[in-house]
Amino acid sequence: MKNRLPTHDPTSDAERWFDAVYRVRASAGDVDQRAQAIALEQSVEVPLAAVTDRRVREDVVGRVARVVACGDAFEVTIRLAVETAGTDAGQLLNMLFGNSSMQDDVTLIDAHFAPGLTAAFGGPRFGIAGIRDLVGVHGRPLTCAALKPQGLTAGQLAAIAETFARAGIDVIKDDHGLADQAAAPFADRVGAVQGAVDRANDVTGHRCVYAPSLTGNLDQMRARRAIAACHGVRMFLLAPMISGVSTLSALAREASAPLIAHPSLSGVARIAPPLLLGKLFRLFGADASIFPNAGGRFGYSLDTCAQIVAAAREPWHGLLPALPVPGGGMSVERVPEMRSIFGDDAMLLIGGSLLMPQEPLLARSRQFVEAVAQGMH
Amino acid sequence: MKNRLPTHDPTSDAERWFDAVYRVRASAGDVDQRAQAIALEQSVEVPLAAVTDRRVREDVVGRVARVVACGDAFEVTIRLAVETAGTDAGQLLNMLFGNSSMQDDVTLIDAHFAPGLTAAFGGPRFGIAGIRDLVGVHGRPLTCAALKPQGLTAGQLAAIAETFARAGIDVIKDDHGLADQAAAPFADRVGAVQGAVDRANDVTGHRCVYAPSLTGNLDQMRARRAIAACHGVRMFLLAPMISGVSTLSALAREASAPLIAHPSLSGVARIAPPLLLGKLFRLFGADASIFPNAGGRFGYSLDTCAQIVAAAREPWHGLLPALPVPGGGMSVERVPEMRSIFGDDAMLLIGGSLLMPQEPLLARSRQFVEAVAQGMH
Repeated sequence: MKNRLPTHDPTSDAERWFDAVYRVRASAGDVDQRAQAIALEQSVEVPLAAVTDRRVREDVVGRVARVVACGDAFEVTIRLAVETAGTDAGQLLNMLFGNSSMQDDVTLIDAHFAPGLTAAFGGPRFGIAGIRDLVGVHGRPLTCAALKPQGLTAGQLAAIAETFARAGIDVIKDDHGLADQAAAPFADRVGAVQGAVDRANDVTGHRCVYAPSLTGNLDQMRARRAIAACHGVRMFLLAPMISGVSTLSALAREASAPLIAHPSLSGVARIAPPLLLGKLFRLFGADASIFPNAGGRFGYSLDTCAQIVAAAREPWHGLLPALPVPGGGMSVERVPEMRSIFGDDAMLLIGGSLLMPQEPLLARSRQFVEAVAQGMH
Repeated sequence: MKNRLPTHDPTSDAERWFDAVYRVRASAGDVDQRAQAIALEQSVEVPLAAVTDRRVREDVVGRVARVVACGDAFEVTIRLAVETAGTDAGQLLNMLFGNSSMQDDVTLIDAHFAPGLTAAFGGPRFGIAGIRDLVGVHGRPLTCAALKPQGLTAGQLAAIAETFARAGIDVIKDDHGLADQAAAPFADRVGAVQGAVDRANDVTGHRCVYAPSLTGNLDQMRARRAIAACHGVRMFLLAPMISGVSTLSALAREASAPLIAHPSLSGVARIAPPLLLGKLFRLFGADASIFPNAGGRFGYSLDTCAQIVAAAREPWHGLLPALPVPGGGMSVERVPEMRSIFGDDAMLLIGGSLLMPQEPLLARSRQFVEAVAQGMH
C-alpha cells in the first residue's frame, strides 16, 4: 500500500530541516549555551570554531530554534538538517539522540518532520484499516491475547492459541520472550499455532490472526517470516529497540504483512514514550504499537498513554494511522475503562491474567471478547 | 580466529542459568516481592500462579538468587534460564532487561554468564592483539582520530584523513554521524579516504587503518562492507544500540575485520555502562569499544570508566579482550593522564579538538602522536 503524500518541494527550507525537541535541566544562565552544545553534539559533533567550511556551517550545523522555560527545566528545540539523517531509521535516531542519550540532563521529548521526510520512511503499510480488514472487525476495539509462558512446547502453546481463537480473540501474539528456543522452536511453534488457529477459525467463522515474534538479525527474521508465511501467518511482532529501528523499517518496506511493535528495551527514562512508541515506530512502519497502559505493571501515566495513542493515530502528512495496543498487566475487568479512554480504534491486549488457573481459559477469554463486544454498556 | 574455550558440561546446572544483577529502589519490606516480580517479568511474564506446567516452573521461571542492601537501594540477582536466551544477542538483551527497562525503579547493573553461553557468542574475533597486529603497534596505546564534521565532501574528508595518517595516527574512524549522506556518500567517501590513507602510509611506512561507519540494516551494512573491502578497508565502526546487538553479532560471526563499537543511543536504557559498553558489546563481538571518558562532554565518572575498561579487557572464559577506546571531548593535553589511567592496552580517541583552526591540523595531530609515543615521560 502506498502513502498518499501532500505535494511538497524537497528543496524548500522547510523540507531541509527537522526539529528535535529536548527537555533540558539547566539554569536560566546556562541554558542557551547548553542548547548550542546539543545542537553541535547532534549534528557536526565538533566545536563551532572547528567548522570552517561555509556550506557545513550554513546547511549542516544544528540550529537552536527555540528555548522555552517549562516548569523546572527548559524545552529546547533544535533544528537539524535532513541531509544528516537521510532515509535510514537508525541514522535518524542517531541524529535525534545518539550522543545526547549519554548526557543525563537531556530527554528527547518530541520531533517534527516535514512531509518529504515522513514520505521517505512511509509509515505503516497496513495501518488500522489494513489490520481491521485482515481480521474482519469494524466498529469496536480489537482484542489481543499473548501466547505464553515461554518454556511450553509448541503443542502446548498451540492448545492455548486454539482456546483463545475459539473464544473469539482477534489477534494472538507471541509473548515477546518467545524467540527460537529449544522448547518451542520457531518453525515448530508457528506451524502448530497457525494450524490450531485455522482449525478454530473453521469452527467459529472468525478470522483470528496469529502474530509470531520475529527475533534475531534481519536474515533470521526474513527466513522465519518466510517459514511463517508458508503456514499462512499474516501478521508479525517485533521489538524495534532490540532489533534496531532500521530492521523494522526494512521489514515495513517489504510490506508483506502488518507489523506490531513491542516496546521491549524502550526504557522510560530518556526518550518520551509518545515520541518513540507512538510517532517514531509509526514513522518507521509499525502498523500497531504495544505500550504499557497506566495502572498496570509499568509506571506510565494516563496522560502519557493518551499522548502515545494520539501520536499513533492522529493525521500526519498522509501516513496511515497505527493501531495503539494498551497492555502490560491489563485484565478483563478493565475493558470498559480502556474502551472509554482509547475508543474503538485500539487493540486491547490482555496477557497473563487470562492464564490464571482459577477459571477455565476458554471462559475467561470469552469474557474478554464479550466485554469488548459490549463496550461500555 | 577461534576462541579458546575452557571445557565445560553444557548440561550442568551452572551452564543452564545466567545471572542478571539489578539495582532496585524499594523499601526493605517490599524488596523481596519486587525481586520476585522482576524474576517473572524477565522470564515467563505471567504471575507464578499462571505457570501450571512443572517443567516451566522448574527450568524456565526466573529465580531470585540474592538480595543485598546496597546504599539506599538493593542489589538483586536473578537467575535466568539459558534456554530462554539461546544464542541470539538481541534475545539475550531482551531477557536481561526488555520489559524491566520500562520500570524506572530498576537498573541493570551486571550479568554473569557460564562458559557455554560466552562461547556461543564468541566475543571479539580479533581483539586487542588482532588490532595491534593490523596496525603494527605494540608497547604503547593506539591513537585514534575521528573524521568530521559531516557535511564535508568525500574529497575534503579524505584530505583530513591524509593529514591524520601523515601525522602518524594509528586508526582514523568515521564520525558516528557519517552514514551514506549525499554530501559524502559511503562509496565515494570510503574510496577517497582509504586512497588518501594508503598514499600517506606509502610515505610514512606506517599502517594507519581507516574504520568507516556501517549504518542502515544488515543488508546495507554488508553491501557497504563489501564496497569498502574492495578499497582495502580493514576495520569498521558501528553503533550496536542503533543497529541492534544481533546485527553486531552477525557481523562479528562473519569475522571479516575488527569492529569498533560506538556508544550512540546507549544512554537511554538504564543499563550500567560497564555492562553494556564493556561486557555485552565484547560478548557480542566488538573488538574495540568507544566510551565517553570522564572529564569530557559526558558525565561518566572515573570509576565507571575504570569498570568499562576492566570489563573489556579482563580474562573472561577465554574470550579475547576488547580494546577500550576512551573519547568524547578529549584533548592532546590529557594524553599523559589517560595513559596513566588506562595503560598501554587502550586506544586514545581525540575528535573535534584536533580540528580547531588555531593550529595546523598536521602539527596538532603530530603532537597527539608524540604525546602517546612518549607516554608519561
